[in-house]
Formats: sequence, structure tokens, C-alpha cells
Amino acid sequence: MKKRVLTGDRPTGKLHLGHYAGSLQNRLKVQATCEQFIMIADLQALTDHFEQPALVRDSVLEVAKDYIAIGLESTVFLQSQIPALSELTMFYMNLVTMGRLERNPTVKAELKQKAFGDSVPAGFFCYPVSQAADITAFQAELVPVGEDQLPMIEQTNEIVRKFQRLYGVGALKECSAMLSETGRLVGIDGKAKASKSLGNAIFLADSAKEIKQKVQRMYTDPGHVHVEDPGCVEGNVVFAYLDVFFADKVELASMKERYRRGGFSDGVLKALLTETLQHFLGPIREKRESLVDRDVLERVLTGSMVARKVADATLLAVKEAMCLNYGSSV
Amino acid sequence: MKKRVLTGDRPTGKLHLGHYAGSLQNRLKVQATCEQFIMIADLQALTDHFEQPALVRDSVLEVAKDYIAIGLESTVFLQSQIPALSELTMFYMNLVTMGRLERNPTVKAELKQKAFGDSVPAGFFCYPVSQAADITAFQAELVPVGEDQLPMIEQTNEIVRKFQRLYGVGALKECSAMLSETGRLVGIDGKAKASKSLGNAIFLADSAKEIKQKVQRMYTDPGHVHVEDPGCVEGNVVFAYLDVFFADKVELASMKERYRRGGFSDGVLKALLTETLQHFLGPIREKRESLVDRDVLERVLTGSMVARKVADATLLAVKEAMCLNYGSSV
Repeated sequence: MKKRVLTGDRPTGKLHLGHYAGSLQNRLKVQATCEQFIMIADLQALTDHFEQPALVRDSVLEVAKDYIAIGLESTVFLQSQIPALSELTMFYMNLVTMGRLERNPTVKAELKQKAFGDSVPAGFFCYPVSQAADITAFQAELVPVGEDQLPMIEQTNEIVRKFQRLYGVGALKECSAMLSETGRLVGIDGKAKASKSLGNAIFLADSAKEIKQKVQRMYTDPGHVHVEDPGCVEGNVVFAYLDVFFADKVELASMKERYRRGGFSDGVLKALLTETLQHFLGPIREKRESLVDRDVLERVLTGSMVARKVADATLLAVKEAMCLNYGSSV
Repeated sequence: MKKRVLTGDRPTGKLHLGHYAGSLQNRLKVQATCEQFIMIADLQALTDHFEQPALVRDSVLEVAKDYIAIGLESTVFLQSQIPALSELTMFYMNLVTMGRLERNPTVKAELKQKAFGDSVPAGFFCYPVSQAADITAFQAELVPVGEDQLPMIEQTNEIVRKFQRLYGVGALKECSAMLSETGRLVGIDGKAKASKSLGNAIFLADSAKEIKQKVQRMYTDPGHVHVEDPGCVEGNVVFAYLDVFFADKVELASMKERYRRGGFSDGVLKALLTETLQHFLGPIREKRESLVDRDVLERVLTGSMVARKVADATLLAVKEAMCLNYGSSV
């Protein structure tokens, strides 16, 4: 039987090449061998974008378009359309202590990044519990994550074990992390990872012109002033992108060698990446532009109905275990 | 139009005379003039009784029996049967900061009483948010509370105002506290209030024998050793109970006078209270014993269906305001 995988994105903007390198390409592989559920996590997006509900709403459609455009065929669903997730969150909130949430390394790191100050929303603070609800509702066995999100998997499994100890086994199962092979894609400015908020990302929906301009702006090697100078490949953003998107790895290795020796201009290098990305993103953009909003939304809502059935079955088992099943509900 | 009132109890045991004095008798009055929804708050009970799901389940039935036995005819419903309450809680969690929850005086006081130590469950810590969901889901205008729960009403209205500021007015309305006239009923031991956990309460379901024994154990006035001694009425548990349950207030004032002067024995006084309580609780107990479990549960589930419609309507309006309404859901 195919293993169940749960994955997804917070809809706070269109997806970019960082998403592709970090997770989307992995999902394309996974969909062939696993039963994959992909959640557009609009409720989770609201935990730190509650002041921008329209942005979240618009992004749901954009993210769904990105999924379809790259060829994802898994069940895509919308978190807010699955009430069972909120009910499970309520039940799990009793199984997690405040101290445990305070010590969650992922949340700690995110709180540092965000400018909440003294005003940390309770919803954001508690989102690991909501994530545990998402994962367990779908009886997911595998959850693709980066290293930095491993504490989330641990938190989920702690909740599952506490639930089992209190209410018996059967309703819930533990999950395993599926560590992605590729790391994070660096931003075009060479700083940190590519992200919408830093304005250093190439979006799947970018026009040919935008792609060209963004590659032009890419950081290469400041020591590589003249064509004949030896160049550095490590930390060179153009090579970081070629590593992910240039298919011929033998040719790429040879180019790196030539760049290191000197005599390989940044202009030629960037032209190569531009061509590579145009070739890759062109069909995605075309597909994306051919999509009709209404159809995209319908696909997400149909996926949500499928997802709802799965989550409702888990909720029923959970309610039975917790003596909360009164027959007529769910 | 009749005002909407929301009230309820955590099902963690049978109801006792403390509940009657503090809230049940008020509900009997209110049901004539207001549209009253009474919630059996099983999810809230689980925030500090998550290790005893069977106790909560059993208590749902016991509390419902108590309601019916005293003559409550309002809509009685079960919190866990209303998924909209969990969804609203999730939305409101983003509108409350951790600092605000930490400063909630009611939760602070309760945390001191409970033996959570360093292990405060997140569900308990956040229950004011869940309470705001309960109140607003039913568009309650009045919420009967004691002085100690006023911060809960304030917290609810803060959430409503923040919601309105972010997402517009229309979906939610603020509520007002309905301060109960009667204070807390003291326990039969004279210590603190009557409560199940302190073992100092007379239950609505107590047998005639239990009532008699509990009145016998009541604290009167330690200085009132001989019948002829002057007795103290203040702090005298028997008089505290007569104040609530003895109908003839003129006669009661005269008895207090005689007790103060001396010559009124504790035995006679207790016999009077026993008779008063037997007279009051006898019919309630009889009615209670005549109830069939299945019928009681059916009444609660029917009430829950009524409540669900009201809460779903609020949820729909809230989702529309938050750009989360996708038409096919709710």
C-alpha cells in the first residue's frame, strides 16, 4: 500500500524557485510512489497574516495555480475547509503544556524573525498544535520537512503518544520526517534564502523579462573582475541556481572547472542561467496563464471534499477514544 | 425581541445547591423573559480533566438530568457537538496576544488553585478564547457571571472589537455581563464555597438520608454551646442555607432574632433546614429518578442541533468577513 504523505504551503504569495528547489520538485517525485495530500494552509497563514485576510485569500488561488502549472496531480485541499482540523486542535491543546510550546525551537527561531515584539498572537504560538492536527488528521506516515522543522515532527509525535497513553491506541499514528535532499535556494542577492518578503526570489509566474532582469542582478564573485580572473563557484548565486536547474551535471562540472581557472565571463554564465530558467519556467508560465480561476478553485474545493472525508474519519475515531462520540455528529 | 442569554456548566460531576444558589435559580427566572441557551461545556471540562474523559462523559448526562429535574426548559446543548465553536476559537486565537492571556485575572486565580505546577495545558491557558467563541457564536447579549468572571466578558469584548476593526462589523456583537444577585453558597463545613472537589456540597440528587446527614454536619456557631446561649447568625452555615431556601423571609428574620437572643437550639434549627431541603429537593430527586438516560441524551442532542444552526450562521458570517467563505462549506 502506498504511504500517505502530508505536505503544503502557507498561502502568503505566489511560489518561487526557492519553493521549487526546497519542496515542489520533491512532491513531483513523491506523487508517483506515495499517496500525497497537499494542504494550502490558509488558517496557518492567518496566524501571522491575520491583518491581511484578502492577501491570504488571493494567495490560495495563486498557490493552487502554481501547483497545477508544475504538474502536481495529488489531492490539493484548503485547510479552512476542513473543520475537523480545528476540532482536533482543540483536543490536542490539552495534551501540550505551555512550557513545551515555549521551548519549541522552530517557533523560537520564527519569533525572533518576526516583529511581534510583546504581542505574540496566541494562534501563532500554538500553531505546532494545529500542525499536529493536520498531520494526524490525514494519518500521514511521512512529512517532508527541512532540518529546521524537525521539532514540529517531534511535537506531533509527542502529542500522539500522550493521546495514546490517555485514550488508547488505534485512532492516531506517529509520523516520520522525510528530509529533503536539496537544501534551501539562496536569494538572488546571495543573502539568506530566497523569499518573497526579502524581494530576492524568482517566481514561477515571473515574465521572461523579469527572469532576465533578476538573473542580471544576481551576485556572483566580487573577486571575478576581469574575464581572465579565476572565479569562485562557492557562494556564487548563479552556480547555486544552475546546480538545481541545469540538467547536464557533467557539463556543469566542466563549466565550474573553467570558471575557477579563469576565462569564463559572468555575462556568459548569466546568459546560460537565463536560458536555462526561460526554458524551465516558460511552459509553467504558459500553463499558469491558461488556467481559469473558477476551475482552479473548483479543483481545490473538490480536493477539500476528499480531504474532509479522510479527516472526518480520524475525528470520529478520536472522538470515540475520548468518549465524545454521540452518534449523530461528525 | 427577547434578549439572547448564554450560560452553562462544565460537566465534571453532578450539580449541587451551590450551583442552584449561584446560577440555576437565576436561569429559571431568565427563561421566562429571555431566549436562553445553556451549554454543557464538555470541551472546557476537558481542559483540566483531559485525563478523565469518562467522568466528563458521565457528567454530561448527570448535569442534563439536573437541568430537567429543576424545570429548565431552555435550549440545552453540548459544546463538543458544535464544530463551529472550535473553528471560531482558531480564528480568535490570532486576535489575542500571549501577554493578554497571561494577565487574565480569572485564569491567574484558577491556575493558583489547580495543581498544574509547570505543566499548564495550553488548552486551559487559552480557554478564555474558547469562551469568547461560545459567547459570540450564539450572539449572546447577556452572560450571567459572578464578579470573578468579569474579566472573561472583557476578554470576549476585546476580541469582538479587534475582529470588527480588522474584518468589519456585522458578524459579531459585544455582550454584557449579567451579574447574579446571590453570592456563592458556603460549603457545609463553612469553608469557602460549596464544591464537589471539597466534598462539602449537597447535591440536587442527594437522598433524603444524605441530606439529613449533611445538615447534621453543618457548622453553626462554636460559641453557641447551650440552648440558652446567644447565637451568631453571621457565618452560621445553617442560616446561610435558610437564606436561600426558606421561603418565608419574615419568619426567617424572626428566627434569626430569637437565635441571637438565645434559647433557640441548633438541633431545632437543623431540623428546620432539613425539612426545608427535603421539601425542596424531594420533587427534584423524584423527577430526576424518573428520567430515562436515552431520553435525556436525545433532548441534549436535539438542543445541540438547534444550537448548531445558530452557531453555523455566525461562523458563516465570520468566514465571509475573513475572506474564508468558499461557498460549499459550513
